Amino acid sequence: MRSHRHRPRPNSDASSPPEGGTWLYGMHAVSAALANPERRLRRLLVTRGAEAELAERLSPPWRVVPEIVERPRLDGLLPPDSIHQGAALLVEPLEAPPLERLLEQTTGPVLVLDQVTDPRNVGAILRSAAAFGAAAIVVQDRHAPQETGLLARAASGALEVVPLVREVNLARALEMLKKSGLWVVGLEAAGPVTLAQSGLIGRRVALVLGAEGEGMRRLTREGCDELVRLPIKPAMESLNVSAAAAVALYELARE
Amino acid sequence: MRSHRHRPRPNSDASSPPEGGTWLYGMHAVSAALANPERRLRRLLVTRGAEAELAERLSPPWRVVPEIVERPRLDGLLPPDSIHQGAALLVEPLEAPPLERLLEQTTGPVLVLDQVTDPRNVGAILRSAAAFGAAAIVVQDRHAPQETGLLARAASGALEVVPLVREVNLARALEMLKKSGLWVVGLEAAGPVTLAQSGLIGRRVALVLGAEGEGMRRLTREGCDELVRLPIKPAMESLNVSAAAAVALYELARE
Repeated sequence: MRSHRHRPRPNSDASSPPEGGTWLYGMHAVSAALANPERRLRRLLVTRGAEAELAERLSPPWRVVPEIVERPRLDGLLPPDSIHQGAALLVEPLEAPPLERLLEQTTGPVLVLDQVTDPRNVGAILRSAAAFGAAAIVVQDRHAPQETGLLARAASGALEVVPLVREVNLARALEMLKKSGLWVVGLEAAGPVTLAQSGLIGRRVALVLGAEGEGMRRLTREGCDELVRLPIKPAMESLNVSAAAAVALYELARE
Repeated sequence: MRSHRHRPRPNSDASSPPEGGTWLYGMHAVSAALANPERRLRRLLVTRGAEAELAERLSPPWRVVPEIVERPRLDGLLPPDSIHQGAALLVEPLEAPPLERLLEQTTGPVLVLDQVTDPRNVGAILRSAAAFGAAAIVVQDRHAPQETGLLARAASGALEVVPLVREVNLARALEMLKKSGLWVVGLEAAGPVTLAQSGLIGRRVALVLGAEGEGMRRLTREGCDELVRLPIKPAMESLNVSAAAAVALYELARE
């Protein structure tokens, strides 16, 4: 697993514990964070069963001493309906390196999300990005979810693998991607050609996805080198944004 | 849009209204059900704004007289956090035709879900299935979610387009798919070849996906003609099941 650097960052999420930091939960998210040397850890709360399951995934000793708890303690600690599987890990947020440096140090496509706000979608997109070898996901800080437990659980460990780069100005980020030699492709239902037809082979691509419903904002669309679509039937207007991201990343990763 | 037949069916979902039936909500789910002549409708509750928006999607008169309400009425009627966009439609559940007849009357791949229980995932899979021209989704009745408002919203109208066939015995359903001439392909991380390498072109395929974590059950796996994988990086164990479905359906729909 690749990992990425962090700096402590204020966390405005309502579900933050009073002592700061974020509770990650679920077996994949917790074991991936435990295994990431760049992730600063504070506390690990596990049931006896979850401790054993974690030990199978990652040999102890871990970088934090586990506190054995009963399941109801976790139910009370985490947001309602959190599928914690008996494990919760209090961590400090990761901070990605600056985009420019990241581009120099990696290969693979970059995904740009314009106002995708659902943490489940962003988490699922991180997971697909890790699975298909994307270098980073770029989001606009003000219009993107925080790295909460819910997002991390949907990412299934990928939050430790793919840097989530938060930019103030997305149009400026697209400019920087172009200057770094990437071809910026926007995904849009009205794109004149399909992604597979667009002849991107051999090019490093930044793929831009807009919010469901509204799509990309005007400035974002105008910042693209090319607009492409996915080949879907007229019966449907669009795919779910995380399904679209998975399909597009799969297409870009084809040999 | 294709549509499919229905018969009234008892609905055991906890969020069912006392008078029976299911509340669909959200602009896409409601307008698609209004437009589906096979869907039996009971009541339509809309805000003034949502009524106007619905009218843009589908010219009135509709098959049910809208009742104009204020937004809090819908908040109270629907499960907490339902993103209803001002529209709720009380409907009777659709029932898909028998699988054998459906196979005769359609083309396109069939998706088989073995114990995928999250209604958001099944809804998102329906949406991708409609987008990539799948003929049907087959689930095991006991281990599949009911067609609730949450599932219908995730499906974004696709519940009216792709039949969701509920079978008692999934192994027997796989046998029937084979007898009808379909090639049954199970998706599994340990599959010896990738889906793209498997040479399925020209064949009508039934694609089987298991639950996240556990994958397919033994009997389901043994019922497959072939096991294939998606080409993902070793950093990740798997994709989200709805991302995997989208990618696989995209690959099967390639010219």
